[in-house]
Amino acid sequence: MQLALATWQEVEDYLRTSNGVIVPIGSTEQHGPNGLIGTDHLCAEVVAKGVGDAIGCAVAPTLAYGMSQHHLAFKGSATLRPSTLMLVVRDVVQSLAVHGFQRFFFINGHGGNVATVTAAFDEIYAAKSLGDPVEQVRCRMTFWSGGPRCKKVAEELYGGVNGSHATAAEVSLAQYYQPQAIKHAQMSPKVAPPSSQFFEAADYRARYPDGRIGSDPSLSSPEHGKRLYDAAIEDMVEAYRTFLAY
Amino acid sequence: MQLALATWQEVEDYLRTSNGVIVPIGSTEQHGPNGLIGTDHLCAEVVAKGVGDAIGCAVAPTLAYGMSQHHLAFKGSATLRPSTLMLVVRDVVQSLAVHGFQRFFFINGHGGNVATVTAAFDEIYAAKSLGDPVEQVRCRMTFWSGGPRCKKVAEELYGGVNGSHATAAEVSLAQYYQPQAIKHAQMSPKVAPPSSQFFEAADYRARYPDGRIGSDPSLSSPEHGKRLYDAAIEDMVEAYRTFLAY
Amino acid sequence: MQLALATWQEVEDYLRTSNGVIVPIGSTEQHGPNGLIGTDHLCAEVVAKGVGDAIGCAVAPTLAYGMSQHHLAFKGSATLRPSTLMLVVRDVVQSLAVHGFQRFFFINGHGGNVATVTAAFDEIYAAKSLGDPVEQVRCRMTFWSGGPRCKKVAEELYGGVNGSHATAAEVSLAQYYQPQAIKHAQMSPKVAPPSSQFFEAADYRARYPDGRIGSDPSLSSPEHGKRLYDAAIEDMVEAYRTFLAY
Amino acid sequence: MQLALATWQEVEDYLRTSNGVIVPIGSTEQHGPNGLIGTDHLCAEVVAKGVGDAIGCAVAPTLAYGMSQHHLAFKGSATLRPSTLMLVVRDVVQSLAVHGFQRFFFINGHGGNVATVTAAFDEIYAAKSLGDPVEQVRCRMTFWSGGPRCKKVAEELYGGVNGSHATAAEVSLAQYYQPQAIKHAQMSPKVAPPSSQFFEAADYRARYPDGRIGSDPSLSSPEHGKRLYDAAIEDMVEAYRTFLAY
Amino acid sequence: MQLALATWQEVEDYLRTSNGVIVPIGSTEQHGPNGLIGTDHLCAEVVAKGVGDAIGCAVAPTLAYGMSQHHLAFKGSATLRPSTLMLVVRDVVQSLAVHGFQRFFFINGHGGNVATVTAAFDEIYAAKSLGDPVEQVRCRMTFWSGGPRCKKVAEELYGGVNGSHATAAEVSLAQYYQPQAIKHAQMSPKVAPPSSQFFEAADYRARYPDGRIGSDPSLSSPEHGKRLYDAAIEDMVEAYRTFLAY
Amino acid sequence: MQLALATWQEVEDYLRTSNGVIVPIGSTEQHGPNGLIGTDHLCAEVVAKGVGDAIGCAVAPTLAYGMSQHHLAFKGSATLRPSTLMLVVRDVVQSLAVHGFQRFFFINGHGGNVATVTAAFDEIYAAKSLGDPVEQVRCRMTFWSGGPRCKKVAEELYGGVNGSHATAAEVSLAQYYQPQAIKHAQMSPKVAPPSSQFFEAADYRARYPDGRIGSDPSLSSPEHGKRLYDAAIEDMVEAYRTFLAY
Repeated sequence: MQLALATWQEVEDYLRTSNGVIVPIGSTEQHGPNGLIGTDHLCAEVVAKGVGDAIGCAVAPTLAYGMSQHHLAFKGSATLRPSTLMLVVRDVVQSLAVHGFQRFFFINGHGGNVATVTAAFDEIYAAKSLGDPVEQVRCRMTFWSGGPRCKKVAEELYGGVNGSHATAAEVSLAQYYQPQAIKHAQMSPKVAPPSSQFFEAADYRARYPDGRIGSDPSLSSPEHGKRLYDAAIEDMVEAYRTFLAY
Repeated sequence: MQLALATWQEVEDYLRTSNGVIVPIGSTEQHGPNGLIGTDHLCAEVVAKGVGDAIGCAVAPTLAYGMSQHHLAFKGSATLRPSTLMLVVRDVVQSLAVHGFQRFFFINGHGGNVATVTAAFDEIYAAKSLGDPVEQVRCRMTFWSGGPRCKKVAEELYGGVNGSHATAAEVSLAQYYQPQAIKHAQMSPKVAPPSSQFFEAADYRARYPDGRIGSDPSLSSPEHGKRLYDAAIEDMVEAYRTFLAY
Repeated sequence: MQLALATWQEVEDYLRTSNGVIVPIGSTEQHGPNGLIGTDHLCAEVVAKGVGDAIGCAVAPTLAYGMSQHHLAFKGSATLRPSTLMLVVRDVVQSLAVHGFQRFFFINGHGGNVATVTAAFDEIYAAKSLGDPVEQVRCRMTFWSGGPRCKKVAEELYGGVNGSHATAAEVSLAQYYQPQAIKHAQMSPKVAPPSSQFFEAADYRARYPDGRIGSDPSLSSPEHGKRLYDAAIEDMVEAYRTFLAY
Repeated sequence: MQLALATWQEVEDYLRTSNGVIVPIGSTEQHGPNGLIGTDHLCAEVVAKGVGDAIGCAVAPTLAYGMSQHHLAFKGSATLRPSTLMLVVRDVVQSLAVHGFQRFFFINGHGGNVATVTAAFDEIYAAKSLGDPVEQVRCRMTFWSGGPRCKKVAEELYGGVNGSHATAAEVSLAQYYQPQAIKHAQMSPKVAPPSSQFFEAADYRARYPDGRIGSDPSLSSPEHGKRLYDAAIEDMVEAYRTFLAY
Repeated sequence: MQLALATWQEVEDYLRTSNGVIVPIGSTEQHGPNGLIGTDHLCAEVVAKGVGDAIGCAVAPTLAYGMSQHHLAFKGSATLRPSTLMLVVRDVVQSLAVHGFQRFFFINGHGGNVATVTAAFDEIYAAKSLGDPVEQVRCRMTFWSGGPRCKKVAEELYGGVNGSHATAAEVSLAQYYQPQAIKHAQMSPKVAPPSSQFFEAADYRARYPDGRIGSDPSLSSPEHGKRLYDAAIEDMVEAYRTFLAY
Repeated sequence: MQLALATWQEVEDYLRTSNGVIVPIGSTEQHGPNGLIGTDHLCAEVVAKGVGDAIGCAVAPTLAYGMSQHHLAFKGSATLRPSTLMLVVRDVVQSLAVHGFQRFFFINGHGGNVATVTAAFDEIYAAKSLGDPVEQVRCRMTFWSGGPRCKKVAEELYGGVNGSHATAAEVSLAQYYQPQAIKHAQMSPKVAPPSSQFFEAADYRARYPDGRIGSDPSLSSPEHGKRLYDAAIEDMVEAYRTFLAY
């Protein structure tokens, strides 16, 4: 049940039997020569919706803007400052907690969000621990691609060249979700420079001239995307259920 | 050109000839017995994408969460605090301004956003006026339904009972955009209580027991939605072009 | 009863029979060649005090600084950032709510405040709606010049050239309130350029070289001010009472 | 020259020969049985205006709300949180610095403001010292009653019972400024309990049941106020000139 | 009992008989030619620990960074913005209040902290006074060097040339605490320029070229430091006990 | 070179040949029955000082308070909210960057800091990437215990029961650093419950009744601490040099 496509009465009914909700979160940032700027939020969204379709759990609207400061030297990228994103997460969680949601399962499509969203969770828990009058909630964040089935498919398909940004896997999944927007580009070099620490946007661009890290997304295809999607849904259904039972 | 579906190189090309971008903004809040919680952001989104398709202008990912505090007594509604939403708008605008975007045309689907988003624009301009080292940008916000053509269609279809929340028009447009999620419900009373000032969420609910204000969305249909959509696209194309030339 | 001129015991007595208070809010910004920088807060203040004198309601000290970023290219103008003004409004309302005030009637003298102060109200209500432990309050903001009697007088006196900034009406009212500070200046052009959207301070100044919008304040006089004052008091008394009964 | 009563062109002229401005700051808080809630800002205001009249220096609109948390157990008192007041001071200073004002002389009427306003100055200087692109400004804050002449008059008039809150001197000055609002009350005990450290509002009220600290404001009179006023003007003119030359 | 060197069970035991805690606070800033950058926090820390050793009271970890914006033109100095330091003080106090600590005795080594820390206390009290659901706490801040015994020793040792920054007394105490870090330097002039108002960092450096104010710290010695230490411990034990009994 | 024990002239000299600085960061939180509340910051501090002694690099004063919300159900623990700690990190980095420091190597003693401090770094980089006028800096954070030599020693000493909070290794290192504060306690159960996700403080305490996670710190000894110390120094020297050369 996507909240966006439900009525409030339907949500009221839902809350009689479940207090869990999935929040897809991604980013709006470059994804190399053939990757879409929306890749991260599109991937999180399609998987979250798929889980919602599979087991009927609530899925909140996608947080499409994430912490992407390092991509700002590539046109079209946008970032929320960490301090802003933390407030967004707090407000969304606090809003839904008003209704009785208590378990927030964030399906994430972007590594750059991890620190900030984790800090946002800690800010929420800190309020509780310090005695602020807030609801007791539990949050968990996981990558759509981080489960065992999905990792296995990615390994089979791309071995060591899936990479860590503009990965072949995420480009494939986005192609599966948005086939009308498949892009083609030559990769040069074929496999992008490997992952290393980076800092601000200019530094990132100097290290990864076309935006990719360690990947060869010319290998991507919507068919791969379908396989990854199926694996991710199974992984996330399992992870969500584990979380609810935690 | 949806940014989410473009590559960074495509955005780089785009910026050679235009510095304009459309930002759809809506809300996640109850819309009465047959309206979707996502109605406001879905309507803003479908119109923004339609304008992008029609004239090739850039369309940023939708801001799906708005200022909806007054709806929190209805399950599933979520709000950003005004102070949070102002930071979100600032960050998105500042990010895109880094790339050379200078004209930000917000297509809005939610009256409750107006004060906060206007204040956000003022916060951005204030920084410039006070000498902070920020880019010079121009922002405008308009309702998807606020142009002459769209108003005319709504008037023809619903006359005085379009209302001001969970309107027949917005429910119709959402049905056109998401036909798989059309809901049916009895309206009681047929036309909801008329608009008046409201305050916090409990007060709102006391005034408008099923969430609607002044509307009879049982009149809605996807066919109406198509007519409204066509009118809105024309209105918004015109308004966007006027803004670019301003 | 002006709070500033009362003792705390007098306020304690007042609260036994009323929980309403008027908060005058204006700005500190240029008002063209013969308008005072304090025009907006002086007008709000004199009307608020007049209402207090007329019906004995509480009147808080004037908020003399408003959201005036667009006037900063004219010497002497000062602004609060929207985010700052929102905190000021929150603190004043929360303070007075501690004592039992529940109805806050803001008499406003400055259009530029509307979005920010409305967002401030929403921030206050959002806290309540989200479950923060805050008092339940109701706020309303209205222009001193926005009632039917006052509009009628302005229309009679100035017809279409009252304008929208440094208006003949507000200059007249300020002359009535502060006759020792009446200024004389040639207007060139006689009627200032009409209202249009503006952005940051430099943009505003380029559009309205002497600061006025659409007005001819050389028509102003303290006698006009007296007529406007009398009309405004009647309008505001009525509006305040309506609000208390709301 | 009161900014509120000047035109922007007059301020432009002023800035050709001076970059100094006086900012009166006070509070809105109880002042005992016969003291006005506005005492602190009224005193700061009347002295600031008097200095402006005497030597033609610029006087900004009064900051009528200060840091008064400890008075909130007495009806009618209002406070800005320190963090809010710091932003107000920053915005006012930054605004006026845009025009070329560089020397900000705060005439203060309230001891409770000292820490917060000093911290606000430090916040402004910290921005400069840390390399933020802000103007170089200099701020000083002084009590209207802190100069040698004024202290001498107060000592002559009240000796050891001037006290430290709701002082006979400040009540007298407010009576001189607002003779229509002179209040009469029995003081019991005649001299209020002496000054000691206090904490939140409930604690303050427990220590000082009628709001006064160490004072006997039944001694106050508008004639005393006139003497204090004259002394304060001389003191503040001298202090302001010293500051400009510093 | 230093919290840092205790177990949680020991703190639990302590709280059965006392709700007081000492918080040492200083700065990280230049202290002239022979003074350590850590002088202020080292002095606060050694005295706080000494008091803890003498009477067994709880001593929290030292706040080593303070409000030092004016020293930033000297290498190695670091500052927290006042707004940041206020949040730090709030969080530390609120955390310890969760456990039952109610009396917070700050031993301070740096004049520049006074306004900000006092404002931080006011922010905490304001929350309480405004009805926020926070614990009732009492805070007091005192200089390690501000008691009668310590002042007497400093007067005996240095008379009028103890100064007000990089004082002979604080350098001596730091030498006593950290004898391995005693530095030797020629003072030129022997006694630094006297105290006067300063503003941002560049201004401070122009007034006090080697960083000292009014002092001759070449007079310092660890033996002096021992005498000052002993006096300070007695002073602070007394002041702490007075505060607990307040 | 500890900044706290250096003069500003010594730092000035240092900056002629290096722009690197180590910032120790830990926490103030319970560490089980025999672990010190200061364990995390003591460990970070002793290792940082050791590296400074070994190779002469600059070491800033320790950040003794970290993100410890989950420990607040154990007496003596204190936390900074994530949003506060982010500001502290920003201010310290920005301060030192004023002097020319560009490489900030945080030696961390507390897992709970990772998300927040990483988000703080991202906030700093985001400012740069968004065009704010800030210095270009590079930050890295590493655990004192995270290098290969130190991990090997811990594995040799404790195998699978080092655990993840109140670890035998960190208790040993703290015993080595503060031998006067060695505590003895029975562990029951001998090995604490294994690591799992936790939320707010009450939840943490329910999962880990005596505060430990997965550890048996009764195995700790100062002799172990010495071995761990030596290994950590070597690891951190190497890591710091790698970072400077990065």
